[in-house]
Amino acid sequence: MPTVKLWTDVEVAANPRIQVVFDDIRATRNSDFVNNFWRALANQPALLERTWASIKEVMIEPGTLDPLTKELIYIAASTINGCTYCIHSHTAAARAKGLTDQQHAELLAVIGMAAETNALANALQIPIDPQFLVE
Amino acid sequence: MPTVKLWTDVEVAANPRIQVVFDDIRATRNSDFVNNFWRALANQPALLERTWASIKEVMIEPGTLDPLTKELIYIAASTINGCTYCIHSHTAAARAKGLTDQQHAELLAVIGMAAETNALANALQIPIDPQFLVE
Amino acid sequence: MPTVKLWTDVEVAANPRIQVVFDDIRATRNSDFVNNFWRALANQPALLERTWASIKEVMIEPGTLDPLTKELIYIAASTINGCTYCIHSHTAAARAKGLTDQQHAELLAVIGMAAETNALANALQIPIDPQFLVE
Amino acid sequence: MPTVKLWTDVEVAANPRIQVVFDDIRATRNSDFVNNFWRALANQPALLERTWASIKEVMIEPGTLDPLTKELIYIAASTINGCTYCIHSHTAAARAKGLTDQQHAELLAVIGMAAETNALANALQIPIDPQFLVE
Amino acid sequence: MPTVKLWTDVEVAANPRIQVVFDDIRATRNSDFVNNFWRALANQPALLERTWASIKEVMIEPGTLDPLTKELIYIAASTINGCTYCIHSHTAAARAKGLTDQQHAELLAVIGMAAETNALANALQIPIDPQFLVE
Amino acid sequence: MPTVKLWTDVEVAANPRIQVVFDDIRATRNSDFVNNFWRALANQPALLERTWASIKEVMIEPGTLDPLTKELIYIAASTINGCTYCIHSHTAAARAKGLTDQQHAELLAVIGMAAETNALANALQIPIDPQFLVE
Repeated sequence: MPTVKLWTDVEVAANPRIQVVFDDIRATRNSDFVNNFWRALANQPALLERTWASIKEVMIEPGTLDPLTKELIYIAASTINGCTYCIHSHTAAARAKGLTDQQHAELLAVIGMAAETNALANALQIPIDPQFLVE
Repeated sequence: MPTVKLWTDVEVAANPRIQVVFDDIRATRNSDFVNNFWRALANQPALLERTWASIKEVMIEPGTLDPLTKELIYIAASTINGCTYCIHSHTAAARAKGLTDQQHAELLAVIGMAAETNALANALQIPIDPQFLVE
Repeated sequence: MPTVKLWTDVEVAANPRIQVVFDDIRATRNSDFVNNFWRALANQPALLERTWASIKEVMIEPGTLDPLTKELIYIAASTINGCTYCIHSHTAAARAKGLTDQQHAELLAVIGMAAETNALANALQIPIDPQFLVE
Repeated sequence: MPTVKLWTDVEVAANPRIQVVFDDIRATRNSDFVNNFWRALANQPALLERTWASIKEVMIEPGTLDPLTKELIYIAASTINGCTYCIHSHTAAARAKGLTDQQHAELLAVIGMAAETNALANALQIPIDPQFLVE
Repeated sequence: MPTVKLWTDVEVAANPRIQVVFDDIRATRNSDFVNNFWRALANQPALLERTWASIKEVMIEPGTLDPLTKELIYIAASTINGCTYCIHSHTAAARAKGLTDQQHAELLAVIGMAAETNALANALQIPIDPQFLVE
Repeated sequence: MPTVKLWTDVEVAANPRIQVVFDDIRATRNSDFVNNFWRALANQPALLERTWASIKEVMIEPGTLDPLTKELIYIAASTINGCTYCIHSHTAAARAKGLTDQQHAELLAVIGMAAETNALANALQIPIDPQFLVE
């Protein structure tokens, strides 16, 4: 259950500042579906605007990492942070961008392996090899 | 400072079970350098053998995700887990596999963005949209 | 679903040691409502007593931080720890202490910003500036 | 040790895009000191610009939470995220904004108490009381 | 809701590679019940095989820590990681191995105490005493 | 580097309220060594007193879990929380209570295994089997 109200399309339509962002989300994604994350942020126009602007810049504008790779990184971070909503939304986003079952399996294996060796390295307090340092 | 002894090559040479693993690490990576993580795990042969076997299977054997993508996922998980050693070792590994400064910048931006929206989604306890569910 | 039994008022009434704590919770908060956290801890009288005594000392007794500020700090910690129950209970507590929607929006913005820069600083392993050290 | 180069003032001066941000950091804070976090982000101009713009909006522009309260929230999040650099930089920032030893003591007590009850609530998987839900 | 399909016994029976693992889970545990974790991993045979082999080696094969102690350690890690599923499954497993209510209460107290002092030590950035170092 | 002053024995001797706690630490542990954690908490007498009282009750007073088992649980929680100081201090404490290298190896294997399966279970969002619920 959310800790804030989720804005319906009718409520959004009554608030031009929010409507502008929702319009841009729909146009950018070429889809009428606006997920609950943005309907919750609508309570906080400044945060909504800044977050959507950042997501557009980081996840959607062309760069040197392809969109699917960015989603895999996002899923890894969300999994370790234990963000249930983010795991669901970004796994769905990754599938929409072509994630295959085999790739998903390999993604999970890497995340799990990282979590295990992270715990081992932390428990052992291993000193950093000089070879790994940036000169 | 480590919580266990780090094995030197001389000590490894006196223990055939450990030596076999170190030989395979060197052969697989085509490099004489064996980093401290393995020198710490050498105190625990069963854990050393199992961890190296898993790392080989997950990170090195060919699959549908390329080796650099796997390193980016590993860095994302290690960053959120706060594993200093792992961040250093896998950032170095990613660079050795061709990570450019621009790709590194985009990786950081995605990890940071994920961490921010993870916190927002958790604080807001946003319900999962039915569209994200696996039927 | 809880991993332990939640004690009802009838069950509490049959156990004087638990009843004393519940009475004090009600008297201190000037409310008849005792939330599930305490009904779960009732399985473990020593832990119940110690936790309630600490909560009273830390969160309720007058100090130099006002009660609403303490709730904001509590929400920040609970969000990063991913404690669903605590996010709900302390957001409700903060609202009861006067948290406005605008303050909630700013709280979320700070938590999200902190999470993002925490991830960036960890990924970059930034050395601490000497200016930040306590002499 | 950082995983990227830290930019010196001389290097910054040779890059107008970075220089503009550093100038704004100095002007906004009314101080010549630019801490290492920004010197690390200088490797990534877009990330530097976006992060500084967000920090200004969230932490510096006037709102309904006072600047010291925002720093306390930041410290709470950074502590739970285990971000060594951020704990140091924001504890120093809080002191510069007037944090007293007594307030620091109470901040720590709340963060510690939250961490303890977060763990208890997670271990017990306590169901959310209907009273805490937003209607 | 899972992000992948959960395999039914009928589906497992049609895939010999998965069936072999499920047969071994049932034989090793001397129980017909196979919990959802394995039904989810069934989508990824290599990960299923490797994870089950590791769990058998780590949790089931005789060693110097008794099986109940291992479950307590597992619950502690799962609680801090905020893994709802794991908290439930390993609390149930610990009870099946004889965990009493009093032991559960003490386990919770230690986990909570550790979480509190972890937060305090991180917030205070306490330097490691030389007495704690491995010579 | 600590974010607060570490109290020396001379400074403690000048503050009776702190001295009482330090005396009890030494008497309870039958050792003259007082580690830095308590020297940092000395800045905050109420927090020092409450934390030491809780540690005594939870970790030292006899119960149904033996002292070494409690240390293993503490190390597991501290490792996942990424508390460097706590990992060092409680690994040393466990060794002082008889932890063998083989037990340490098994502890690490369980913590690592838990971290891996926690990540997998979170990434897969596995629904809790009804068999695991408390009726």
